[in-house]
Amino acid sequence: MQEVRVGIVGLGNVGSGTLGILAENAAQITLKLGFRLKVVAVCSRSVEAKTMPPSLGVVLKTADWREVVAHPDVQIVAELVGGTGVAREIIDSAIAHGKSVVTANKELMAACGPEIWDRAIQAGINLAMEASVCGGIPIHAVLREGISGDRITALYGILNGTSNYILTEMEKRGEPLAAILTEAQALGYAEADPSADIDGFDARSKLALLAALAFGEKITPADIFVDGIRRISPMDFQYAHTLKHTIRLVGAARQTQEGLILSVRPALIPQSTILAGVQGAYNAVWVKGAYGADTFYYGRGAGPQPTGVAVVSDLMRVAREIRGGSPERVSPFAHERLGEYQPVSVTVQKRAYYLRFRVDDRPGIIAKLAGILASKHISLDSVLQEPCNTKHDLPFVITVEPTSEQSVRDAVDEMARLDFLREAPLALPMETAL
Amino acid sequence: MQEVRVGIVGLGNVGSGTLGILAENAAQITLKLGFRLKVVAVCSRSVEAKTMPPSLGVVLKTADWREVVAHPDVQIVAELVGGTGVAREIIDSAIAHGKSVVTANKELMAACGPEIWDRAIQAGINLAMEASVCGGIPIHAVLREGISGDRITALYGILNGTSNYILTEMEKRGEPLAAILTEAQALGYAEADPSADIDGFDARSKLALLAALAFGEKITPADIFVDGIRRISPMDFQYAHTLKHTIRLVGAARQTQEGLILSVRPALIPQSTILAGVQGAYNAVWVKGAYGADTFYYGRGAGPQPTGVAVVSDLMRVAREIRGGSPERVSPFAHERLGEYQPVSVTVQKRAYYLRFRVDDRPGIIAKLAGILASKHISLDSVLQEPCNTKHDLPFVITVEPTSEQSVRDAVDEMARLDFLREAPLALPMETAL
Repeated sequence: MQEVRVGIVGLGNVGSGTLGILAENAAQITLKLGFRLKVVAVCSRSVEAKTMPPSLGVVLKTADWREVVAHPDVQIVAELVGGTGVAREIIDSAIAHGKSVVTANKELMAACGPEIWDRAIQAGINLAMEASVCGGIPIHAVLREGISGDRITALYGILNGTSNYILTEMEKRGEPLAAILTEAQALGYAEADPSADIDGFDARSKLALLAALAFGEKITPADIFVDGIRRISPMDFQYAHTLKHTIRLVGAARQTQEGLILSVRPALIPQSTILAGVQGAYNAVWVKGAYGADTFYYGRGAGPQPTGVAVVSDLMRVAREIRGGSPERVSPFAHERLGEYQPVSVTVQKRAYYLRFRVDDRPGIIAKLAGILASKHISLDSVLQEPCNTKHDLPFVITVEPTSEQSVRDAVDEMARLDFLREAPLALPMETAL
Repeated sequence: MQEVRVGIVGLGNVGSGTLGILAENAAQITLKLGFRLKVVAVCSRSVEAKTMPPSLGVVLKTADWREVVAHPDVQIVAELVGGTGVAREIIDSAIAHGKSVVTANKELMAACGPEIWDRAIQAGINLAMEASVCGGIPIHAVLREGISGDRITALYGILNGTSNYILTEMEKRGEPLAAILTEAQALGYAEADPSADIDGFDARSKLALLAALAFGEKITPADIFVDGIRRISPMDFQYAHTLKHTIRLVGAARQTQEGLILSVRPALIPQSTILAGVQGAYNAVWVKGAYGADTFYYGRGAGPQPTGVAVVSDLMRVAREIRGGSPERVSPFAHERLGEYQPVSVTVQKRAYYLRFRVDDRPGIIAKLAGILASKHISLDSVLQEPCNTKHDLPFVITVEPTSEQSVRDAVDEMARLDFLREAPLALPMETAL
């Protein structure tokens, strides 16, 4: 029985999770592969402080990643450092050494995936990145191979576990975002700087990668419209429930006649949809295909072990290909060549919208707001007001029939100047196509 | 640009769906692969009556499958005939000709998968069977590669679309099974002989295949405990809802200390679980891993196009491997070698149970039933009775605390002899572990 030998760079959360699974689950991994997957070298800045699972046997421990990449026995380098700095150097160097690469690096692959893939193909090595998006969900395997025969028309995802945890706790407990965020930070579920999670940037990188896989276009994350969850409050869930909807931070990619429309933003989704059932720190991806209709994938978005499973599964896949004598020479994206993405404004698409107001009550408010909507040719669908004791800071909601985002923005801009509003109206699309 | 050439045997639902996608989606398939997937021969008993999509160009049409398999240009044979007779000959012959095989044949692969795979490995050809289970869900790609690094501890599936359609319509409309079945047959959703669907045999073959992939054991479908949905009635949904549960036909595989426990049977599942949200003719698979926690996969279970996507995706996968110069030489099961499955009786596992009775009302019934339960050391959890006008054929429900299946069977056998019962008690497990 031969073995395939692995070097791991980075022993943070994901690296430790990966190493733990490789050690604990070794017997089953060997049974599945028919050969051993042997860790021969690990690198971490604090490698001296790390204890290796004894079952791994002799492992080179180093603080210098170059020693791992250059190690003559290492056939696959797992880059688990993250970020776009040294991680890029590690991957480039591994490719230059003719070694296959497994990475969990969402940020780097979203920013430079196509370039890195080109170099991997030229070098005849294998590249795998299942762990880079939705750690616990094997969405790469699904999009690259499982449903590659389909033509995907839309993809909707709950791609950030932290923001989904905050929203679903807000929904359950009726407490404001700030309180739940503070608690999540104390529990280690949210970063000290929560912006990447709650302002939608993390989800945006993931959507860029998934959309490249699904639609075959080279997508720059910065081209994607993004809006976070900071303005969502418990009363929005009350109103959404009255409308038989809930609110989630949705990463959406839709193939339209105008082109591919991408956005990450909070949206109302019907309670009857399976996406609405996604609670807590879970991730989920809903895919619509021209032939296969709807499929749905759900799992942990992050965490050392779920992400570790993705890394180990990639190592097994690449190891099989090395043993089979054939580097894969296949795009880590689902398309042999990626098209150039021409950003399409989200404003072209017509949808129903939820508009939530906080006002100082006085006669004529609805008339004023309805007048502005009418002037933009927007049809009012319903006016909702939950019972409320105060005349100051009174919340209420108007829903409008499908209209363009631009019309809604124009109306909201004009409304924002009205003196009875306590804050600018909150406008959320209603995803009825789900 | 080279091409990889395909022969298709069988132009029924799945074959036609496959051919349609290969024709219509050709541009995107070529873009994804970087080369063409060319259909060069098709076989059907009624091939003269079939019109080929013109974009396919010159295609050999024959009624003799041997011509497809022996065709010198054919590199991959798609066996879409089904059944265990001629399908086996086609696959064996293709392997003997050194051609790779894609199959949608659940029954054959559940019965003889490991043997066929051994022959494929020896011949150095590729075998793929994504379409054989849960047509629209790429569950093979997930189990073989996507989460292969995990150690799966349990798998629960809604594996038969027809029975799920019947149950969810019964739940929605409150009509009995017979009425919905007749309607489904008229609409072509159910076969004239519905036994395979509603008695659980179709789901059992699928569970055998999925469990082999997930747990690496060679499983004979006949070793799996099976019970169908014939005894489920609208009142069972009423009671289940009172208990905040619903009822689904669940294929379950659980790794326990006693070994792998397999069953296909109707069960109560909590309404709060994502599996409970699976409506209509959809299939779903819930996987629990030792490391990756819960993942969930959902899609159409059957239909020419969803199953066609699975076949085309397999063709693309095998074509890539042929182009890469390396037959895969990997088990189509997730394990290099399968263990020998030692059937474990479902009776060893302790679970809560739902017992539904239909009685002619008289004093002392509950006392009598409770006495029998007590004599088997079964603790009663609740007694439920929905308002009812009649004293004849009065339904009510007893739920009991976790106990062994054997105890429940013993109690039910003893109860069945009581003269106030209109029929034997219906006993369903409550799947609280989901």
